[in-house]
Amino acid sequence: MNFIDATPLQVDAALREAQLAFLSYKNISGKKKADFLREIANEIEALGQQLVETAMRETNLTEARIVGERTRTTGHCRMFADLVEEGSWVDARIDTALPNRTPAPKPDLRKMLMPLGPVVVFGAANFPLAYSTMGGDSVSALAAGCPVIVKAHPAHAETSTLVAGAIQKAIEKTGMPSTVFQHLYGKSFEVGQALVNHPLTKAVGFTGSLAGGKALFDLANKRHEPIPVFAEMSSVNPVVLLPESLKIDFEKTASLLAGSITLGVGQFCTNPGLIIAIENDGLRNLAQKLSEEIVKILPGNMLHQGIADNYNRRLVETLKQQGVSIEAESIQKGNEHQGHAVIASVYAEQFLKNHLLAEEVFGPFSLIIKCKDLTELHSVINHGKGQLTSSIIGHEDEIEKHKNLINVLIEKAGRLIINGVPTGVEVCPSQNHGGPYPATTDSRFTAVGTDAIKRFARPVAFQNFSDALLPNELREANPLGIWRLYNNEWKK
Amino acid sequence: MNFIDATPLQVDAALREAQLAFLSYKNISGKKKADFLREIANEIEALGQQLVETAMRETNLTEARIVGERTRTTGHCRMFADLVEEGSWVDARIDTALPNRTPAPKPDLRKMLMPLGPVVVFGAANFPLAYSTMGGDSVSALAAGCPVIVKAHPAHAETSTLVAGAIQKAIEKTGMPSTVFQHLYGKSFEVGQALVNHPLTKAVGFTGSLAGGKALFDLANKRHEPIPVFAEMSSVNPVVLLPESLKIDFEKTASLLAGSITLGVGQFCTNPGLIIAIENDGLRNLAQKLSEEIVKILPGNMLHQGIADNYNRRLVETLKQQGVSIEAESIQKGNEHQGHAVIASVYAEQFLKNHLLAEEVFGPFSLIIKCKDLTELHSVINHGKGQLTSSIIGHEDEIEKHKNLINVLIEKAGRLIINGVPTGVEVCPSQNHGGPYPATTDSRFTAVGTDAIKRFARPVAFQNFSDALLPNELREANPLGIWRLYNNEWKK
Repeated sequence: MNFIDATPLQVDAALREAQLAFLSYKNISGKKKADFLREIANEIEALGQQLVETAMRETNLTEARIVGERTRTTGHCRMFADLVEEGSWVDARIDTALPNRTPAPKPDLRKMLMPLGPVVVFGAANFPLAYSTMGGDSVSALAAGCPVIVKAHPAHAETSTLVAGAIQKAIEKTGMPSTVFQHLYGKSFEVGQALVNHPLTKAVGFTGSLAGGKALFDLANKRHEPIPVFAEMSSVNPVVLLPESLKIDFEKTASLLAGSITLGVGQFCTNPGLIIAIENDGLRNLAQKLSEEIVKILPGNMLHQGIADNYNRRLVETLKQQGVSIEAESIQKGNEHQGHAVIASVYAEQFLKNHLLAEEVFGPFSLIIKCKDLTELHSVINHGKGQLTSSIIGHEDEIEKHKNLINVLIEKAGRLIINGVPTGVEVCPSQNHGGPYPATTDSRFTAVGTDAIKRFARPVAFQNFSDALLPNELREANPLGIWRLYNNEWKK
Repeated sequence: MNFIDATPLQVDAALREAQLAFLSYKNISGKKKADFLREIANEIEALGQQLVETAMRETNLTEARIVGERTRTTGHCRMFADLVEEGSWVDARIDTALPNRTPAPKPDLRKMLMPLGPVVVFGAANFPLAYSTMGGDSVSALAAGCPVIVKAHPAHAETSTLVAGAIQKAIEKTGMPSTVFQHLYGKSFEVGQALVNHPLTKAVGFTGSLAGGKALFDLANKRHEPIPVFAEMSSVNPVVLLPESLKIDFEKTASLLAGSITLGVGQFCTNPGLIIAIENDGLRNLAQKLSEEIVKILPGNMLHQGIADNYNRRLVETLKQQGVSIEAESIQKGNEHQGHAVIASVYAEQFLKNHLLAEEVFGPFSLIIKCKDLTELHSVINHGKGQLTSSIIGHEDEIEKHKNLINVLIEKAGRLIINGVPTGVEVCPSQNHGGPYPATTDSRFTAVGTDAIKRFARPVAFQNFSDALLPNELREANPLGIWRLYNNEWKK
């Protein structure tokens, strides 16, 4: 197939159509939006094996992974359907009038979240389904009431086209405005640029590299009317191994880490890229065991040639830094599409002097930071930038002893994990997939879980409105039966 | 008194001190933070007449206004004290583990809002108490658990110093970290720049001009680590008068508008700067009546000479635009400190061609936009930029007939008002003081009301934590008795 970049005229037309769709879509009930999102899930499932095979061919990912990702994608469609059908996500707050208050009467005031407007979503290379066409950004924007324009990721444009077709069918079947979802192609940066710069675009969702996300963020902030960009970009997800526990658990910990580092050829934003520990027998045994585990793992093909080239370039660059040595690596088959797993190590002293070593190497790579003592371990943690996750592995009593580590790690990450690895991101209300810069461009929001909807909504207050003029969510009798803060009391 | 600009070394020291304070303050209980905020309110009240007189002298505002503002300031201290003492603001979400789930077990995951870190607040010229030293930004940041550094507004540095002293006393009395609040002076832009650029600064609060807010926003986005700036900047708060109702109510409406336009010498961000109506007898009668009202209002001194000069310059500039004519004005006494009230008018056709006419004239000025018909009225509304508020004045049945106006106005403003004026901003949970750019830099947050706290917090998820290691807010037994979404059900 031939996927042709959208022209500036096509971008402009798409945004105008999206704005038109917005003016009706934003007023559609939660119930109807739920029907729409559920129908999208059905239509994606109806694509059957064709979708699985296309995605496998375009991304080199395994069938199990693609099938899993499809389940996740249809799952979040249904999760957001439940959320908007139930309706309490609008965070309604009501303060009734006090006409006799002195010195001035208090007016009736009611507030709820409302959609921002047309949202531009950039498909992600590493999640052809769950973070692309009908990924977490699209589904949360549509759930909020925002029309979506997806720029297909060029590496899996055919997969993207199939999913876009499924969404189009769902639009027709459920009678949604026909341009509430639109699908464009763009290999060149200019297409993305035109989409972000268009005055009708009200927000942007992006998952990818730091350079890509930062470029969109800068564009959006330089607009005549700056708009929010939620970019999920770069994280090395440090894992801190506590010294005494490591001496006992090095074998179990090595298996856990080896699996997480090589999962999906390391192409996850939650890949554990830094392992921080005090150098002792436990750490030496862990490195030995990691080496035994890693050598057993066959290297897989990476998502596309650009990612493989970048991985190999970054790997070479990192390994030649002063003090860095290889601890473990998988058998290299000599195939340049493949990402062979490497675990290297460096002394904390060198690490702290070299900013390059704290940067993400996107692929199955992890760097062990060997610390002399607890003070140095603290320095390494304090040195770190914003992350999606931070993990601590150790026995309960040892963690309790090092509780102040948690206090510091909280400032650096959006999710803290005890005795687990960062890969495997649950989709649920308590999830936070976000974190201080450069993990994301706005740590106040999550990209995964029901709260992702809040990225694409803003509060609107209604003062002195009669019941008939209010949205259903704010009417006195609470016809939707949602949770509301009514005169400072949570009620249904 | 002599207020000396902070040096770069002092700014650096202040941020280091703030960060130190943060590491303990963030873990202080809601109950203790509440005691602190209430003690601040008490200490501000204890300043008594000295504070009132100082603020009057520095700002030219009346005693009634300053006393009212003090009540508002101590009121929001106590409101946020109640909020953090109760504790549910952290928006806790809990999903318990499903160890037997297939294909993969579900971990225990819990999430809550946590403070961002040191916040820099810029005092506002037009609110020497309620949006300055212990204003809405400072109080919501402190409530969230963030240390605050205030740059005093140079126009009321003495008032600011008095309030800072009260806060210092409250810190000592309640045993807070001594540098949880710090107070700096800065007439030059360089002080603000150094504060925003410091790597330990995690967020910024600002209320003031579009130029000032945009400059800080740009600085913050150009940092190595961009940070959120919540700037509340520029709004003309359009008031739409419906044609049939206007014919009957012109007298009442004129009184309402005259009062709102001249309140506080027009120096409110919610000042109604645009009046939009279809030209008919009603509008002509309104203009006549406005003229009678305005002439009766004595012009007051503006906040400081810079604001008066700016008002007079913008007024002259606006009045000389093609098609603009004066409808009503107060008696000009010839005193250059004063802001004399002016109401001008222009035909919609001219207005739509001239972008300058849609910009804020900060002071007691309003521009009537005379529309030929409903289509033109819609064009004027669509033409508008983001606003804090939009108002509609008309009888219920006429508003019902023009319901689509509400649909459009929602996209342009953070608060919609029926049969009321935008001035007079209630401080309560349902308030939204914010709006699309350029009203603010982030329409997803409010600067007034309890939700203002969310500007300075971010979610953090805790995966697989034992109860002992969790914050109290997330412990299984809910020791704080707060509202939490527990396995998708709201519970206390």
